[in-house]
Amino acid sequence: MTTTQLEDGFARQWLDQARIAIVGLGLMGGSLAMALKAAGCSSEIIGVARRQATLDHALEAGIIDGGHQTLDEGLAEAELIILAVPVRTIVEMLPRVGRAADEGAIILDLGSTKQRIVAAMANLATSVQACGGHPMCGKESSGIEVAEATLYHGATFALTPLPHTTDRTLAICQALAEAIGATPLMIKAEIHDHLVATISHLPYLMAGALVATAIDVAAKDERVWDLAASGFRDTSRLAASNVHMMLDILITNRQAIQGLLGHAVDNLTRLARLVEIGNEDMLVSELSRLQRQRQALQGRLGT
Amino acid sequence: MTTTQLEDGFARQWLDQARIAIVGLGLMGGSLAMALKAAGCSSEIIGVARRQATLDHALEAGIIDGGHQTLDEGLAEAELIILAVPVRTIVEMLPRVGRAADEGAIILDLGSTKQRIVAAMANLATSVQACGGHPMCGKESSGIEVAEATLYHGATFALTPLPHTTDRTLAICQALAEAIGATPLMIKAEIHDHLVATISHLPYLMAGALVATAIDVAAKDERVWDLAASGFRDTSRLAASNVHMMLDILITNRQAIQGLLGHAVDNLTRLARLVEIGNEDMLVSELSRLQRQRQALQGRLGT
Repeated sequence: MTTTQLEDGFARQWLDQARIAIVGLGLMGGSLAMALKAAGCSSEIIGVARRQATLDHALEAGIIDGGHQTLDEGLAEAELIILAVPVRTIVEMLPRVGRAADEGAIILDLGSTKQRIVAAMANLATSVQACGGHPMCGKESSGIEVAEATLYHGATFALTPLPHTTDRTLAICQALAEAIGATPLMIKAEIHDHLVATISHLPYLMAGALVATAIDVAAKDERVWDLAASGFRDTSRLAASNVHMMLDILITNRQAIQGLLGHAVDNLTRLARLVEIGNEDMLVSELSRLQRQRQALQGRLGT
Repeated sequence: MTTTQLEDGFARQWLDQARIAIVGLGLMGGSLAMALKAAGCSSEIIGVARRQATLDHALEAGIIDGGHQTLDEGLAEAELIILAVPVRTIVEMLPRVGRAADEGAIILDLGSTKQRIVAAMANLATSVQACGGHPMCGKESSGIEVAEATLYHGATFALTPLPHTTDRTLAICQALAEAIGATPLMIKAEIHDHLVATISHLPYLMAGALVATAIDVAAKDERVWDLAASGFRDTSRLAASNVHMMLDILITNRQAIQGLLGHAVDNLTRLARLVEIGNEDMLVSELSRLQRQRQALQGRLGT
């Protein structure tokens, strides 16, 4: 795709006047609505949520302009539909979304894994446009109560278009990412899933294995918790993530995770062997290589 | 040991009037000097460091009252000697410390692993008293420039006495831990080393294995770094630790680490298998157990 200045300007102008429906008003959907409003995007934002209390909260807080509990009502006349619910809910919901959507509507999702969603999007009628999306941000806590307009600032926003996604649709999705302070990254769904397995799902499972090991040790001596400090705190933090959200992610990315775990176990075993044989030169060389790479990321990751 | 209120009061009074020598003025030694001064402890603090520039900095900043480059000069007339250098340096230095110490002097160290140090302390002449110590705190950066009086606040301060350590010596070491805002924890050196392998050295190696795996993936697709966010940041943070400090710790705690790594690999492989077979009930049950344990620690660890 060639994006000219003219196309860029068009996409942002389109976005500023678009009627946008957001399905799912949790942390991601709620924050997106706030971020779009803060950026001056949309002529109107319609929220779709199962619970009336969520809609009431969002309406009262001025996060949305209207709210509905059903897709048919919520998606009527929407020009841009954003699905901000778990991966398997998106896959299950997509046929109904396709039927409820107006002709020409653009459908973008925020799901954490992309292959299954993009496959489901490929089955939609050609009267709608679709593109996969995954903003790389979040929080440990969930729900609209902790939503904030700055959640997407500085985040990478992966976009996984379908073969049939038009340049116009993609330009609008990119403009949306940029409007909320994120950096769009075009990437194939399959590659996306492999890379996020590496830097998101593997860390979660490692944090879990660390906590599991500490629990086993604590069964014999509880003082292990007294000795835990900032190193354990940081390395184990992801184990406190929302279990059902993570389950949805792990199950929909099983293949990519499987290959990586063997790889990570090999790397852990290799480091352990260097410690076991006490080869200090090789340990210094290898630990320094890892230290350099991690330090090089400090600016980007915020230490 | 039975500690009465009278003994507690004695130990703190003794500490407030003691001439204290601190060997090693890095982050830990420098912060200890500052914390002791802030608490009103010591009649005088003498620093011992290899580099004159370090002593000059500490003197100018009022962190120490006097400084020396040799143990013989620095330890003369010291009633309490604190060794704040790496583990293997402590082990190597202890015979000279014993010879330079005044009769009746108390020797405490801050080394990160305890079995080798306590074994070396057992060889000291009976004219000195000794106790192992390990405050569970630190920073990613090192050196006296980043030292601060509050470093020890809220930290657990492990104390590993020898069979010959007197109640009086132990009470003084406990009073020191409390004076700087830490919580003393009496523990056997061997158990200490097993527990810190679990909550400190294992997390370091896991963070390293995670970075190593991401480097391998990045060799084929560098965009993995663009997708890394707060989860990867936290789980991998320890890989940026000082390599020579960690080498000293890993090499002096090889046995304890070795046993634990097999255990951690088993736990990681078990989680991976649950993902592979897609057993959602068992995954939810296991991930929820780990989540509950991690969340229970949030208050103590500061999220």
